[in-house]
Amino acid sequence: MSVLIVGSTALDSIKTPKSENPKLLGGSASHAGVAASFFSPVKLIGVVGEDFPKRYLDLYRRHRISLDGLQILPGKTFHWSGEYEQNMNNRRTLLTELGVFETFNPTLPKADQATPFVLLANIAPALQSHVLDQMRKPRFVVADTMDLWLNIALADLLKLIKRLDGFVLNDSEAQQLTKEDNVFAALKKIHKLGPKYVIIKQGSHGSILSGPQGLFLCPAYPLLKVVDPTGAGDSFVGGMMGYLAAAKGSIDANIRRAMVYGSVVASFCCEGFGLTRSTRVTRPQIEQRVKELEKLSRF
Amino acid sequence: MSVLIVGSTALDSIKTPKSENPKLLGGSASHAGVAASFFSPVKLIGVVGEDFPKRYLDLYRRHRISLDGLQILPGKTFHWSGEYEQNMNNRRTLLTELGVFETFNPTLPKADQATPFVLLANIAPALQSHVLDQMRKPRFVVADTMDLWLNIALADLLKLIKRLDGFVLNDSEAQQLTKEDNVFAALKKIHKLGPKYVIIKQGSHGSILSGPQGLFLCPAYPLLKVVDPTGAGDSFVGGMMGYLAAAKGSIDANIRRAMVYGSVVASFCCEGFGLTRSTRVTRPQIEQRVKELEKLSRF
Repeated sequence: MSVLIVGSTALDSIKTPKSENPKLLGGSASHAGVAASFFSPVKLIGVVGEDFPKRYLDLYRRHRISLDGLQILPGKTFHWSGEYEQNMNNRRTLLTELGVFETFNPTLPKADQATPFVLLANIAPALQSHVLDQMRKPRFVVADTMDLWLNIALADLLKLIKRLDGFVLNDSEAQQLTKEDNVFAALKKIHKLGPKYVIIKQGSHGSILSGPQGLFLCPAYPLLKVVDPTGAGDSFVGGMMGYLAAAKGSIDANIRRAMVYGSVVASFCCEGFGLTRSTRVTRPQIEQRVKELEKLSRF
Repeated sequence: MSVLIVGSTALDSIKTPKSENPKLLGGSASHAGVAASFFSPVKLIGVVGEDFPKRYLDLYRRHRISLDGLQILPGKTFHWSGEYEQNMNNRRTLLTELGVFETFNPTLPKADQATPFVLLANIAPALQSHVLDQMRKPRFVVADTMDLWLNIALADLLKLIKRLDGFVLNDSEAQQLTKEDNVFAALKKIHKLGPKYVIIKQGSHGSILSGPQGLFLCPAYPLLKVVDPTGAGDSFVGGMMGYLAAAKGSIDANIRRAMVYGSVVASFCCEGFGLTRSTRVTRPQIEQRVKELEKLSRF
């Protein structure tokens, strides 16, 4: 089955202590889309400007990503610039130029409205809701978010959360949302906002699922070197949704392995700037790391 | 088989935003000793003052902890006082009164010198080395440490590390020791200092083993509420060594499960002040949590 993914499609300029990488392909929908594409066909909903390089459109296409829902508008593509500190964990935003994103009003192609798996990747919650409004009986709807929306669009976010099957956020966002320091206490509170499945991302410490079958502690693949973690969270949730859309059986039967696959795709994402590493990954390389993760966590 | 454990035997006064708990039984050897005692007989090497409450000696004895190596000297027992912040992660020391600990010079009873498993729990590395000097062909020697010794006794610590089979430290100590932000890069560097097994503790995120059979990602048992994490790291390594001493077969065959058992005992430790919860735990309760951890991490 297919996954419909809405989110940002951007150009990212990423600085680290060691290098500068201007205008890489980025954005939550790009990262999630490429990650999901290893497992399922993807329908991308987004907007770019006329400056968007043709090679990036080709890149999407090489990944079986349908672009019927990608608007190309007069103006500039959303451009984000950030800088990482030496430890590669702390990041600060240098620049945010919204460009054509400012007036983004996604209208879904008819054919996309019946897509069974829907990933509302990180983007303003009002836009996530607007996309969800257009879907016809989706089977499984998951949204990701970021601290920005907790700060400036909390009411919209809470409205969206009620309608989700699954909600994904990181540990500091979970703490901010629930005022709970304890991640397991936070999970309980987030369930009360609506979603049956809640996933808390913990970066290099992995992620935690709370669902109808209880908790699952999902490991992160050990990396000796993190080149650029931008998009790792998007890759995680994209890989997970792609795997779920391809898997036979119930969500409960597949979601743990789906998270492990997402975790592995995210590990590749961290090994290169932007999507440079992710786009060179093969399915056998993914399978190899999943097998390694099984070994690393068996006792 | 037995485990010999040397470390601090102390009275801990622990403040949290919610309560004050004066002069609880504490110290690295007390926590590690009680944790190990669920699996194996323990020989405790330590020192206390004449003020040390008889009920704490009785507590050790109830846990099959041999006190032949516990000196009772004129003067006061080591007294530590600390305060936790709301999130129960940040701790500051309010008071350290060394008392009889200041002149501690452990001399091992003859009968204890042939103990096969040796745990050099957190204490000055010179004292850890002094105890190791007195051991006759131990089978498996593990040391724990803390940031204080990295700051004031690094040369002693490095001398000790060379002689160890296993070395245990937490992630910020590993970073301080190796100047590596990446925990897996830090593990590689620590192996070069000597030990075949290196374990990095990551608190509620679990722990990581690097050994002859590669990496093992050991989960932490999920706790909805942490009452007092003091001694959790000591309980982890104590439980691990107790389990290893009781297990048949090679270290490699048992160390993963040993870590999981240590992790579970540490989870109980966090659920009460000092040793108040740990000392009420039963072996079936430990087995129950190990089974749960298996379920929580299976995929």
